[in-house]
Amino acid sequence: MNVKPNISAARDKLLFTPGPLTTSQTVKQAMLRDAGSWHTDFNLLVATIRERLLQLAGVSRENGWEVVPMQGSGTFGVEAVFQSCVPVNGKVVVLANGAYGERMAQMLHCAKIDYSVLRAPEDKPVDPSALEQVMAEDAAVTHVAVVHCETTTGILNPVQAIGRVARRHGKTYVVDAMSSFAGIPIDLASCQIDFLISSSNKCIEGVPGFSFVFCRRAALLASEGCARSLSLDLLGQWRGFEKDGKFRYTPPTHAILAFDQALQELEAEGGVAGRNARYRLNHDTLQSGMRQLGFQCFLNSDVQSPIITAYLYPVNCRFNFDQFYNELSQRGFLIYPGKLTRTDTFRIGTIGRIFQADIEQLLAAIDAVKRQNFSA
Amino acid sequence: MNVKPNISAARDKLLFTPGPLTTSQTVKQAMLRDAGSWHTDFNLLVATIRERLLQLAGVSRENGWEVVPMQGSGTFGVEAVFQSCVPVNGKVVVLANGAYGERMAQMLHCAKIDYSVLRAPEDKPVDPSALEQVMAEDAAVTHVAVVHCETTTGILNPVQAIGRVARRHGKTYVVDAMSSFAGIPIDLASCQIDFLISSSNKCIEGVPGFSFVFCRRAALLASEGCARSLSLDLLGQWRGFEKDGKFRYTPPTHAILAFDQALQELEAEGGVAGRNARYRLNHDTLQSGMRQLGFQCFLNSDVQSPIITAYLYPVNCRFNFDQFYNELSQRGFLIYPGKLTRTDTFRIGTIGRIFQADIEQLLAAIDAVKRQNFSA
Repeated sequence: MNVKPNISAARDKLLFTPGPLTTSQTVKQAMLRDAGSWHTDFNLLVATIRERLLQLAGVSRENGWEVVPMQGSGTFGVEAVFQSCVPVNGKVVVLANGAYGERMAQMLHCAKIDYSVLRAPEDKPVDPSALEQVMAEDAAVTHVAVVHCETTTGILNPVQAIGRVARRHGKTYVVDAMSSFAGIPIDLASCQIDFLISSSNKCIEGVPGFSFVFCRRAALLASEGCARSLSLDLLGQWRGFEKDGKFRYTPPTHAILAFDQALQELEAEGGVAGRNARYRLNHDTLQSGMRQLGFQCFLNSDVQSPIITAYLYPVNCRFNFDQFYNELSQRGFLIYPGKLTRTDTFRIGTIGRIFQADIEQLLAAIDAVKRQNFSA
Repeated sequence: MNVKPNISAARDKLLFTPGPLTTSQTVKQAMLRDAGSWHTDFNLLVATIRERLLQLAGVSRENGWEVVPMQGSGTFGVEAVFQSCVPVNGKVVVLANGAYGERMAQMLHCAKIDYSVLRAPEDKPVDPSALEQVMAEDAAVTHVAVVHCETTTGILNPVQAIGRVARRHGKTYVVDAMSSFAGIPIDLASCQIDFLISSSNKCIEGVPGFSFVFCRRAALLASEGCARSLSLDLLGQWRGFEKDGKFRYTPPTHAILAFDQALQELEAEGGVAGRNARYRLNHDTLQSGMRQLGFQCFLNSDVQSPIITAYLYPVNCRFNFDQFYNELSQRGFLIYPGKLTRTDTFRIGTIGRIFQADIEQLLAAIDAVKRQNFSA
């Protein structure tokens, strides 16, 4: 009970990251249980969770929607869509302006699925008109894929405009809404989405362990026979739930118990609207505070999400990110490094069980660290 | 906090299953934390866990071994080996005598990897001499795969004898030791194993959320360029740990905190030898009690593992499994249904945080349920 590194500090550091996030104590306490994955009670719980996820997304089985939880991280969920829903002769156009778009391309490369990448600069939203042009030129394309909130920068991509182009050309549309779902309203139907992926440890504020994929049932059923992986077979997973309510393979039972509690706390906060309001307040508080401290945001505010914000390294002082990170960590705040290819940035997430008062404390700590170590 | 099904009973039902299992309260309490997956403390913890897993397996990096944790259930870990370590022109012989051997074949089928299945009856261990014959006849074979403890029945397969055949013919040898690792001693080196897979929620008594794959480093490095999946790329995952100590994609942080605690409790129990002794006592207590109650074991005792035991439905009474299961559940004991193709069985697991006294209570409950409902 004593050999572990000092991860057992009295109070956990607050996580200003894109996830795993700070969660409520009650969400964590929901894991003080051992549930039998074969037992009726547990599978009823899984059924209610799936039902509540559909409600949260504003869709229903009656209207042709399904939701399929999948073990593993969010990346496993995104890959499950490609591995099991793109036919042998399919081709995916990925619209990318950051690391998560590029990761989709890596997945397709690995799976030997034909693809092309339509890139935009990291500080610009991806471009629906560029997609329109690809549609005119490349008849082989069957699927269009994009990241909603690209956490490389925190930029929001125009999922509705892209969806209109995809639908007009009869393409299947895949949206990675990992870090945005339940934190930013998304109208799946009007965005013409066929598959939307998110995960347990983002805006729903559960713990990591599984992702979930909203599927237009017709698109899901159309993937019959496509699966290149048994574990990541989305249709197979769905059929398992339909057959007897069970995950085909061992579910992360504790993460699911936590998720149930997290969904209740989301509902108590006023659903997506309530959570979005808190995240926006977090973000606005952070932005104005950081500006006062002399930090410059990487993105223009019109494309900036309230999920995570990238800041440029300050230039008028000898800024050292590792030192900055460690000093903040010692004060109980974990921020996140940058992920941009050409510009030095760091990132601060504003999602998770984080409130305005926490942001204010973080800002005070940043002020102190900056004064003590990086004064011009 | 009140809409969920009655999974929140005051005391959890004891799980006599192949997993997820009953875990200690202290293992669950280790999850009352939020760890930053990018932070040094967490990654040091992951490093110590990997080191302790190697020690537990009796191997070391110096002797050419690595261990790679992989998000998802155990099935994801087994599939990761096939998806990322069998070359394009590879062929796998699966020795199968139950559902988990057959699942390997399903994985290979999905991944379009060439394979053949060498079947044994469900009540017989798989046969090394039959493998010897395949080796003589089929030069295309590159990999041999088998399940150590086939939880369909609880049978133990001769992993050492099979390994000798595989090694003599220069084949890569894959062992699914999901339900046996850390509960039954396995000498990876003398068994000639190249890849051995187990998971967090079996004999180490952690919670579900990830698997881990012991790899002979030479075999792992030989898989360069083979991966058909990004998420399940074992070599890529290993390189991520080597590069900066991190999981490439979001780790199940809470399951890892629980696993650290579970490893400490395993060490406190005397490691694999201590745990094996408890499981054997559990199993022996169950076996003699069930025999006294008139239940017949499916397997001969010489091939029966102490992990899980399959019992035939009794014939001299109107036995109804659903009623039997539900009555036991109401008394706080969850047993497991059978999984045999032709014979009606149910199963009772004897692993997890379960002691002899718990087995005795289960036996008393079985006795009562049998008398009240199924007397001849």
